[in-house]
Amino acid sequence: MCCVLIHKIRNKFYAKLSVGKNLTSREEDYSKWYNELVVKADMAENSAVRGCMVIKPYGYAIWEKMQAELDKMFKATGHENAYFPLFVPKSLFEAEEKNAEGFAKECAVVTHYRLKNDETQKGKLIVDPNAKLEEELVVRPTSEAVIWNTYKSWIQSYRDLPIMINQWANVVRWEMRTRLFLRTAEFLWQEGHTAHASKQEALDEAVLMNQVYADFVENFMAIPVIQGTKTASERFAGAEETYCIEALMQDGKALQAGTSHFLGQNFAKAFDVKFATDIGTLEHVWATSWGVSTRLIGALIMTHSDDNGLVLPPNLAPHQVIIVPIYKGEAQQEEIAVVAEKIKSALEKRNIRVKFDNRDKFKPGYKFNEYELKGVPLRIAIGPKDLEKGSVEIARRDNFSKKIVAQGEVVDFIEQQLSEMQQALFDKAKLFRKQNITKADDFDEFKKVIENKGGFVSAHWDGTDATEEAIKKQTKATIRCIPLDAKEESGTCVYSGKPSTKRVLFAKAY
Amino acid sequence: MCCVLIHKIRNKFYAKLSVGKNLTSREEDYSKWYNELVVKADMAENSAVRGCMVIKPYGYAIWEKMQAELDKMFKATGHENAYFPLFVPKSLFEAEEKNAEGFAKECAVVTHYRLKNDETQKGKLIVDPNAKLEEELVVRPTSEAVIWNTYKSWIQSYRDLPIMINQWANVVRWEMRTRLFLRTAEFLWQEGHTAHASKQEALDEAVLMNQVYADFVENFMAIPVIQGTKTASERFAGAEETYCIEALMQDGKALQAGTSHFLGQNFAKAFDVKFATDIGTLEHVWATSWGVSTRLIGALIMTHSDDNGLVLPPNLAPHQVIIVPIYKGEAQQEEIAVVAEKIKSALEKRNIRVKFDNRDKFKPGYKFNEYELKGVPLRIAIGPKDLEKGSVEIARRDNFSKKIVAQGEVVDFIEQQLSEMQQALFDKAKLFRKQNITKADDFDEFKKVIENKGGFVSAHWDGTDATEEAIKKQTKATIRCIPLDAKEESGTCVYSGKPSTKRVLFAKAY
Repeated sequence: MCCVLIHKIRNKFYAKLSVGKNLTSREEDYSKWYNELVVKADMAENSAVRGCMVIKPYGYAIWEKMQAELDKMFKATGHENAYFPLFVPKSLFEAEEKNAEGFAKECAVVTHYRLKNDETQKGKLIVDPNAKLEEELVVRPTSEAVIWNTYKSWIQSYRDLPIMINQWANVVRWEMRTRLFLRTAEFLWQEGHTAHASKQEALDEAVLMNQVYADFVENFMAIPVIQGTKTASERFAGAEETYCIEALMQDGKALQAGTSHFLGQNFAKAFDVKFATDIGTLEHVWATSWGVSTRLIGALIMTHSDDNGLVLPPNLAPHQVIIVPIYKGEAQQEEIAVVAEKIKSALEKRNIRVKFDNRDKFKPGYKFNEYELKGVPLRIAIGPKDLEKGSVEIARRDNFSKKIVAQGEVVDFIEQQLSEMQQALFDKAKLFRKQNITKADDFDEFKKVIENKGGFVSAHWDGTDATEEAIKKQTKATIRCIPLDAKEESGTCVYSGKPSTKRVLFAKAY
Repeated sequence: MCCVLIHKIRNKFYAKLSVGKNLTSREEDYSKWYNELVVKADMAENSAVRGCMVIKPYGYAIWEKMQAELDKMFKATGHENAYFPLFVPKSLFEAEEKNAEGFAKECAVVTHYRLKNDETQKGKLIVDPNAKLEEELVVRPTSEAVIWNTYKSWIQSYRDLPIMINQWANVVRWEMRTRLFLRTAEFLWQEGHTAHASKQEALDEAVLMNQVYADFVENFMAIPVIQGTKTASERFAGAEETYCIEALMQDGKALQAGTSHFLGQNFAKAFDVKFATDIGTLEHVWATSWGVSTRLIGALIMTHSDDNGLVLPPNLAPHQVIIVPIYKGEAQQEEIAVVAEKIKSALEKRNIRVKFDNRDKFKPGYKFNEYELKGVPLRIAIGPKDLEKGSVEIARRDNFSKKIVAQGEVVDFIEQQLSEMQQALFDKAKLFRKQNITKADDFDEFKKVIENKGGFVSAHWDGTDATEEAIKKQTKATIRCIPLDAKEESGTCVYSGKPSTKRVLFAKAY
């Protein structure tokens, strides 16, 4: 695990650990901490289907907020939603060779369309051998093939271009080692697929959508990202260029948070999609595709959360504020409820998502723990003393700060705190990342950083696959991206000593 | 085809047919009219995958409006969204026997998880025989099995109940004869799955959700429906009672628009889901499930549309108003654009969805046809005379009425017309249905009505499967529902002559 983080945990959170949610601490076992947190915070769980997850209501509510915001951003940049089939006939799937090669090894394949009774075992079913499909169907791992086969009939002339479509869908990639949100056999995502009359227009679109992703992830999810391009070996199968946003997790490992591909004319050629230009020539269409998935929820958890549970940026929190009453006896409970309901409705008028937890069967301490675990940004506690003084106590989830606030000032205070917390989470993650980008100019140093400190290593690379592969083999670190804003700087490759003109970012990655 | 309709078409629309969108008329061939309309209005098209459709942006925009409204209604009645796996392991699928039996014959089955290169043909892929799954996976035709297997670990005590979850998802049922929206191998839907501590609570939920569907379909989609229960033979596989809403299409055939099932303890027993009651006993949990799908878009099209194309209720129309300029030369175009943009922004301030089509390459007549075909409720035309007089011409899609309106009064007029049109579509469809519910008291009469007039036949039934089956065999009509508001009325079965206490509704159905 990353040293800076361990240090931070020790100084800041150690005292809190005793409060406990029976959660393994990050220092003890980061991976276990993550797995436990996802389940205990009611985000998701493994299902009876190998590698497939159940996204529970609390986790799904966060995904809905992400969807709503992204959908608005896609529409604001001229895209429309549509829906294409779940299945890809094998002959379409194999049409774009590189794409097919990239996904063939992880495809769920439908071969039959019927079950029948097992004659030998009552109540059991078997696959009906008479219902074998003439052509097998691949469950989409991504939809370029089925979509470009469709675009073929939609595009005749330059007047039909551009086509700017997005799809919200489930996809299946048969991963051998799965982890909730981060890597699952089935996941939810959006995939944009655009068609253009010129190379430049398609390139611009790919860059724009990568920028949209960066804006969304930074401003809405409070996760700082580095924009860059992938090396040839890390590129999407079938792409000419893959733009990406890369984030850094608290354990010093990188996570690819979104990708946007310039597909050149590869799919147009594979599916024979040509258009008549305005000067009457026939040309292949230019393409992009871009996607983000429920994997982003994994990034969200691993960027902000702590040993007490989830920490959610206010923009994404299903409940931004929880009100917990502290009382003895029914009369007091009723008196406090009056104040709580008043505050609740005042907050709702400002479109703040607030819940008043007036359940009698649970003690305040239990509720405090529960909402801490679930990452509710702000907690309002109202007790008998507050009734006397006309005050409430407001606690903030990220920094555990507490303040007594006059009831009349609650709404303004909450609004300000929500906005401050959103920014504070981003700033904290950005500072952490800054502290964990390390320059390395020789390979011993490089290995030491990757091994001990983690994080991104900024180093010169000679641009060859061979070097990339050798470094990966020796350190498990890969080139996460060639940053878009990398400075021109003459240097020598950290591995081969050959000349290089800019630094790229290496890291171990999820 | 239904006589009343033919009569209506003759009287009302015949004159309009000449305008033409190259659309087959309903009178000529209702089925062909529907198929052509779906494609020509850019709603959906068949894909390369047998029985699976591509929902095009215009069709999908309507689905998004339906989703948004339903989602709001589900949340207002206490439900949360979640997401469960696409695949159902065969052993789970077969656990609830009736459910398994009902869906086994139309299941897409995943048997392998990898493709590999075909050694005999370069660039081709084959299913890798070494990647056979130990247990086959069924692509969900519905999710009771996978969800109840999950609920098992969520439910221990009465405190964990009720569980009120909805899922937006794709499902696959391998239908042999498919039609866009009405019957497709893959379709989009929502499926609610609730778990309760008592039979009464589950029954109430099933009834409530059927009522929610009725409210939505009538008030939002302007389609009148009859609420009822299904007979045993038409019930959902695994349900104790199926509530439904039934609509009547313009050709006199019925369409099941939504169903809500009381599942009793069937799934709880199949998956061994028990809860500790508040008095300490252990009991099986009570269940409901309920769903509507993209099929509703088929119902929408067939209820309101005419020989000129789609007719969309304003609530669902992606564009409620289209503004078309009529001009000669650039100067006039610019002058009209100023007026158009002003009206557009005034309408947008009232949350009216409006588009200004200022494309120069298409003539007004072409645009009029296009928006008529696509069912835009109101059209504003602005020409040179309107500039002089400070007026515009407003045409309504459903009744072809036109009116010259002063520019200053446009916004109020449009608002009122949208609301009137929403109501008028419902009233028209309701009147049509009223004219097409026919009482029949002997079987000859019954057959005559089914054969010639179509629509619903209200008749006495002896309550037996045998009679239901015999009637179906002879007339192709099935019992669509036993209406919830059916009067107690002693009579004799239209087929067997045996005693009966109320009338049920028969029809040929989609």
